[in-house]
Order: sequence, then C-alpha cells, then structure tokens
Amino acid sequence: MSDTKTPISFANEVPPGEDRERRVCQTCGFIDYVNPRVVTGVVAHADERILLCRRAIEPRRGWWTLPAGFLELGESVEEGARREAMEEARAELELEAMLGVYSIPRIGQVQVFFRARLLNEPSPGPESTEVMLASWDDIPWKELAFPSVHWALGHYRQTLGRTGFAPFGNPPDTDHLTR
Amino acid sequence: MSDTKTPISFANEVPPGEDRERRVCQTCGFIDYVNPRVVTGVVAHADERILLCRRAIEPRRGWWTLPAGFLELGESVEEGARREAMEEARAELELEAMLGVYSIPRIGQVQVFFRARLLNEPSPGPESTEVMLASWDDIPWKELAFPSVHWALGHYRQTLGRTGFAPFGNPPDTDHLTR
Repeated sequence: MSDTKTPISFANEVPPGEDRERRVCQTCGFIDYVNPRVVTGVVAHADERILLCRRAIEPRRGWWTLPAGFLELGESVEEGARREAMEEARAELELEAMLGVYSIPRIGQVQVFFRARLLNEPSPGPESTEVMLASWDDIPWKELAFPSVHWALGHYRQTLGRTGFAPFGNPPDTDHLTR
Repeated sequence: MSDTKTPISFANEVPPGEDRERRVCQTCGFIDYVNPRVVTGVVAHADERILLCRRAIEPRRGWWTLPAGFLELGESVEEGARREAMEEARAELELEAMLGVYSIPRIGQVQVFFRARLLNEPSPGPESTEVMLASWDDIPWKELAFPSVHWALGHYRQTLGRTGFAPFGNPPDTDHLTR
C-alpha cells in the first residue's frame, strides 16, 4: 500500500439543483456520481456450437457462463466484448451483431451481448477453470451462472440464419429477476 | 453540509489479481471501480418533425441537443430515456426501437439512443431554455451540441419507414471525435 494522499470523507446529500442523494465529499464538495455499469459479453459460435466458460471466480464460481465482464474506461463496447472473450477463453472473434441489451436495475448493470463468430480454438484464461464448445443440446442448462446467460442463449437461437435484426431486451415477465 | 462521517483516502494501485490501477482506500482496502457511464437519449418525432432542446446548462449551454442524460441506478435503459425526455422537454414517448449505441471512450461514455414517437406537446424542463419540433431542413445543424446528436439524427433519417433494424454504432472515421 502506498502512503495516504488526499483525505476524502463522503456523506450522502442532495446537491443543489439535483433531485436525489449523491455521495458528496465534506472537505472539497466533490460529487461522487454512482451510475449503472456496462457489462459486455458474447455468444460466440463455431460449427453450430457455443462457447461457454466455467467460472474460476465468485460470484457463481464453478457455474457456466458466457464470456462477459465490466466495460473499462477507454474502451468501446465492441472492444470490451473482445477483451472479455480473450481474457476468459483466449477467444478471437468476429463480432456479427448486437444480440441483446439487458437492464438489471437491482445490481445497477446494463449488459450488452454480441453474437460473434469464433475464429480460433479457445482455452481457459485466468477467470475460467475450463471452456467448452457446446451443441445446443449439450448446454448445461441447470448449471448456468446468471439469468442473462439463459436470455442471451435463447435470443441467439432466435437469430440463427438472420441478419439485420433489432437487439433483444429483457424477456417478458422477468422483473422478479432484475428489480 | 452534514457532519463528516467516514474518513476515506484513496491512492492509485493495482489490486491483487488485476491488470490495471484502481483507486484503493488506504484505510479499509475498498476498491473504487470507475467504469464508463451510460447515457440514454431519444430521437422523438411527431408529424415528421424532431424534438430538440436548447441546453440551459453546461457543457454546451445555449446549443441544441436531443433529450439525453446519464442513466441512474435502479433504471432500465428504456426508463432512463423516458425520464430524460420528461425532464428536459416534458415529453411523453412511445419507444419504437433502439437506434444507436455509440461509444465515446475519451469521456468514458456509452450512449444508447432510441427512436420514439412523441405523444404530447413538449415544453422546456429545468435543463432546457426552449424546445422545438424541427422539420429536417429546419434542424440547426451548426448549433448542435455534440457529435452524437448529429449521428443519431442521421441514423434516424436512415430508419424512416423501417422496423426491425440493427442499431447503428459509431459512424466510420469518427475516432478523432471519440478517442
């Protein structure tokens, strides 16, 4: 740990001209806006099989997921999706289309999934214990890490053979999973 | 200002298992992840005219913009777009389609624009000095606040009469505006 630099002490208050509480530094007045975060991910396919990763980290360690993670500063959503696929499955991709834009207000996330063509042989990165290329019937449906993994897989299935489609949003009747 | 509560002091360092610097509290180890923020906005139309707002606030005070702003915690992207249209132009909308998803890495933003039908007579909210419903030829092209306002308007124009389209991304050759 490096030396202490600037002392900051936050309190929750409504800044002038605003309509909701923010964390405001009581020393300098800095307003710490906290907003939803963007997750970017991919449904990557090769020969009608889909790339899945078994999570090496919490949450949902040991469960299967699609390559996905938080967008970082300095990235486009497309770059973030490529980076996550590389980090989690050493996967190189051709992004084909935006597949879904899901909002998960409960955890402050907007998740952007792309449909992508897998260009190489994947292997586990540091956040995965293994990767698999699953045919539709071999997907471990009962061991999927998150609801949005289900959604993206189902939406991918609906786009087979299609181009130029609108991205899907949250499926109907899923508010109990997101609110 | 309320009383000082918890003292927090941040320093930049690379947390264990990560590959980039984060702001880490030197007292408690809290990692302050800073990620891109989501802006949601709308191209709202009525009788082939488009809703524009003249900005009452910085940045770009006095310039014309589309209703748009930061997504808040607890909102879906659709809800954020509706709220911004209400706040800036007292506009009620029927969202029709996702029009564009633009990445502006330079300022850490992902901007999601919807095409929407305007359902009422708009009027300025607190962040606007005036609103207008502009026919295509009456759009104040030289007084638009941001590049993405140009992009969303141009992309909207390309979707007239269309449904079920893929959202647009950043236009080609615009990296000098976003990087």
